[in-house]
Amino acid sequence: MPASAAPITPEDRFVIGVDYGTLSGRALVVRVCDGAEFGTATHEYPHAVMDTVLAATGEKLPPEWALQVPADYVDVLKTAVPRAIAASGIDPAQVIGIGTDFTASTPLPVLADGTPLNEVPGLESRPHAYVKLWKHHAAQAQADRINELARTRGETWLPRYGGLISSEWEFAKGLQLLEEDPELYARMDHFVEAADWIVWQLTGSYVRNACTAGYKGILQDGAYPSREFLAALNPEFAGFAADKIAQEIGQLGERAGVLSEQAAAWTGLRAGIAVAVGNVDAHVTAPAAQAVEPGQMLAIMGTSTCHVMNATGITEVPGMCGVVDGGIVAGLYGYEAGQSGVGDIFAWYVNNQVPGRYHEEAAARGLSVHEYLTSLIQDQPVGGHGLIALDWHSGNRSVLVDHELSGTLIGATLATRAEEVYRALFEATAFGTRTIVETFAASGTPVTEFIAAGGLIKNPFLMQVYSDVLRMPVSTIVSDQGPALGSAIHAAVAAGAYPDVRAAGDAMGRLNKSAFTPNPDAADAYDLLFAEYTLLHDYFGRGGNDVMHRLKAMRRDALGGAGEFAGALAADQSEPSDPAESEVGS
Amino acid sequence: MPASAAPITPEDRFVIGVDYGTLSGRALVVRVCDGAEFGTATHEYPHAVMDTVLAATGEKLPPEWALQVPADYVDVLKTAVPRAIAASGIDPAQVIGIGTDFTASTPLPVLADGTPLNEVPGLESRPHAYVKLWKHHAAQAQADRINELARTRGETWLPRYGGLISSEWEFAKGLQLLEEDPELYARMDHFVEAADWIVWQLTGSYVRNACTAGYKGILQDGAYPSREFLAALNPEFAGFAADKIAQEIGQLGERAGVLSEQAAAWTGLRAGIAVAVGNVDAHVTAPAAQAVEPGQMLAIMGTSTCHVMNATGITEVPGMCGVVDGGIVAGLYGYEAGQSGVGDIFAWYVNNQVPGRYHEEAAARGLSVHEYLTSLIQDQPVGGHGLIALDWHSGNRSVLVDHELSGTLIGATLATRAEEVYRALFEATAFGTRTIVETFAASGTPVTEFIAAGGLIKNPFLMQVYSDVLRMPVSTIVSDQGPALGSAIHAAVAAGAYPDVRAAGDAMGRLNKSAFTPNPDAADAYDLLFAEYTLLHDYFGRGGNDVMHRLKAMRRDALGGAGEFAGALAADQSEPSDPAESEVGS
Repeated sequence: MPASAAPITPEDRFVIGVDYGTLSGRALVVRVCDGAEFGTATHEYPHAVMDTVLAATGEKLPPEWALQVPADYVDVLKTAVPRAIAASGIDPAQVIGIGTDFTASTPLPVLADGTPLNEVPGLESRPHAYVKLWKHHAAQAQADRINELARTRGETWLPRYGGLISSEWEFAKGLQLLEEDPELYARMDHFVEAADWIVWQLTGSYVRNACTAGYKGILQDGAYPSREFLAALNPEFAGFAADKIAQEIGQLGERAGVLSEQAAAWTGLRAGIAVAVGNVDAHVTAPAAQAVEPGQMLAIMGTSTCHVMNATGITEVPGMCGVVDGGIVAGLYGYEAGQSGVGDIFAWYVNNQVPGRYHEEAAARGLSVHEYLTSLIQDQPVGGHGLIALDWHSGNRSVLVDHELSGTLIGATLATRAEEVYRALFEATAFGTRTIVETFAASGTPVTEFIAAGGLIKNPFLMQVYSDVLRMPVSTIVSDQGPALGSAIHAAVAAGAYPDVRAAGDAMGRLNKSAFTPNPDAADAYDLLFAEYTLLHDYFGRGGNDVMHRLKAMRRDALGGAGEFAGALAADQSEPSDPAESEVGS
Repeated sequence: MPASAAPITPEDRFVIGVDYGTLSGRALVVRVCDGAEFGTATHEYPHAVMDTVLAATGEKLPPEWALQVPADYVDVLKTAVPRAIAASGIDPAQVIGIGTDFTASTPLPVLADGTPLNEVPGLESRPHAYVKLWKHHAAQAQADRINELARTRGETWLPRYGGLISSEWEFAKGLQLLEEDPELYARMDHFVEAADWIVWQLTGSYVRNACTAGYKGILQDGAYPSREFLAALNPEFAGFAADKIAQEIGQLGERAGVLSEQAAAWTGLRAGIAVAVGNVDAHVTAPAAQAVEPGQMLAIMGTSTCHVMNATGITEVPGMCGVVDGGIVAGLYGYEAGQSGVGDIFAWYVNNQVPGRYHEEAAARGLSVHEYLTSLIQDQPVGGHGLIALDWHSGNRSVLVDHELSGTLIGATLATRAEEVYRALFEATAFGTRTIVETFAASGTPVTEFIAAGGLIKNPFLMQVYSDVLRMPVSTIVSDQGPALGSAIHAAVAAGAYPDVRAAGDAMGRLNKSAFTPNPDAADAYDLLFAEYTLLHDYFGRGGNDVMHRLKAMRRDALGGAGEFAGALAADQSEPSDPAESEVGS
């Protein structure tokens, strides 16, 4: 029980939020009246991410694949939920609702009754029968065809996604499934987001949430891409929208149904309590951070950053990930943008470009390397390192929407130290955020407040850099479990405890309001560096010099079918490390 | 004695080469008939480089100063020469001549008899009384004035130096001396290059060598900058050329005089043997590498790279360091160009951007980190790393002549490994060399052969990269002591054993001819990367985007008078490490 929470009384009512991340699920017990967190538990998926081998057969998977096993998600309900209740010390009878959020787009093929195809006898050896995790990137060829055809045909939905449909989303993954395993495609009754499938397991009925339908399923103004469009991609794909993904839409915060007897048995909760419509990890966090009003941009800052913001009207912001009616809260247009790499870049740098003496010194001081590097550089005056970086090591999601871009560092001298480059990378990600904020403003959707959540908010210097660079106060979420708290808030609304998500967020979300405020002198100096960033951003990102594209093409040609050139130490750079680690990976 | 050398016979004649580097002097005993090396010894200067404190008084020196003590040079004659003879097993009576080379421009103020002013009683506390080492960079303000005035007046000698007189050279250092210690300036009878002062100590008479007079003393077509030009800089400076630096010129390989009784006593050699005219460490190496014919470019590759090449005619190559009649061998025009950072950049990278696990793994295998990184990356196909770098961490000496430029890396991803960046830096320096080679060719002075000397030739993969990038065979010098062997060759010519330096180099120099030849496939792939390098070189280096200048200005403003921002680990990045280490620092 948190020290600040009042004692539990028999009248207290509780809700459960369950956050499904990339590697584990977390359950959180939250008091309805004030959002106080009483207990939590996590369960790691037994099969984790299958990206090299299919567990059922040992078969090797092709590059860029990433699968999961749906039964692992049910295990979270059976283990993490009861353990969280036990940890909280409450009576399960006090729980009035449960809400969930998921990575996305993470779809799976199921029969009409919701049975995953990998559980159909005889199909367990078929890779396409499993869940395709958000980071399954093997449908790029299909995504490229979707984008080219949509541009050619002038499809009106394309600008709603910044001009680019991702290989991570439903249509690309569904088309890959059709073309690589047509028999399985034929047997599939629904291609359902895991966000909705888990709610189906809780209630026994299938309701499709407005968030994934809009952002990942190209549902715009009530319609999916047309049968003609889909047929032009592949005649067999003509019915994909109508036959495989269309379903009754539930708005966020609505009740999808009530807890079934079976799910009650799994979780130890009472049958008949409210189950909220499914949601996505980033978007669900908005009310937990009291960031649901128009103009409040919420940045979930982890390995990557996802920006979500509501507005009253719809505009086409260049390079955004998507705009969806009711995509964050019902009744407003939800905008999403993103930076492909943030904490990932800091982690890559620490693991691959920082000498051993820093690691040793950090350990001797009981600090993480991130904390130690920060301590060395945070007092240097702005511009003192003479460096400027572009934060494109994972490409650029917004506003350039170009995954062939790459990281850049300019200004190194023989006096440049590791901590100076580290700071330049911090600044580059802040400049990337400012570029997004300014693009929204220029499109008529101004950002009036900046609110941060995610693992990176633990670094106060990073937050100060963002405040200085943005010339805005930066508020930070109080909860360490933003998505799970957000799911609990949605459960409270679904249970009727609050009239809507905004009211529930007001009561249950918590924020360190304006935790960081801009230093005017630093902001002036950062303006100069941001001008340099913008000049380089446009030169390398908008066709002034396509060297980054050519370098990537050369790399592919050079390495050929052999894939990655395998150096002796190739294995150990892909693991992000604390504090960049975050479950918000979608 | 080298294993390959025949036994010494009583008829064998020998010469001594003495190479004066930045921190020590080395003596080498060489057989006249074949250049075989029989013995060597080094002596470290007791006062090393005074760049923080004046040893005589403990007085703190201003930033950018670098002084030496002339008596340290004489100590080399007294210790290293006798020890080298002892090590060689020869009879000192078999030595027929001695030659020397020095860093440059390394001038000192002396009285008419050659007494250094710091040895004049009462003057030992005056910093300006000491030798100003080549890397004394405190005369930049004077150099800037010299360049601006020369441009304004259209001085015809300016293009002979690529349009820029360096702060390292005689005129800038002399003007600084005048303006900061006018009384000392008045007492100085000569401002003499250490290269000539050491010969003066050996012979008792002052002969000025054509190499430093031309490259460092602005002697062109028999004339120094005019009295009017000098007076316009400072009226008191009008007589600098005529009164302080003008002196009888000796051509390289000529006899400056004979060994004095005093110098014979110091060295253990016979009085009366030939003493060669002074020389510079880079230029003296040319005959030792059999690189004296027109079109043969010799690159002395160490912390930086110095390129020297002869031609029959004089052209003004943009961005070269200088062209001097007889600057390398008498009778030809000697061209010099340079890259400010080469091995220095590799050393900076290894010390500041390579994780501890590489250092540990290298140690476990008994390799240097340089060797280990090379082993990891040398088999990757060209372009496989997806990176392109600019080798400007120390600025760009040729062909841009801009020390405000800085290092750049483009193409980093989360999969980029330390050894890939290391290779990209190798390639960047090769592209820098190709830029110089192509600029010479475009100016009508084609490079027909590329010959490498210096510490970096120990890395065969680096040499192969140069061969592939240049599409030329790369030959490498055989001797580990190129400058000392070159000085010995000049001693043999001065002693009359050979008619000229070319003939002596033929007999005494040794080369691994075409040790590396271009791989056509790799060369084709490097052509693509070189095109990218050139695009970025011109964009950042020729005014397309002056971001590097602005970043340096911001850095100076930010750090202010406090100089370098002192991080906890600031001290340990300035030491270059093997194999980048080289004495060729001028």
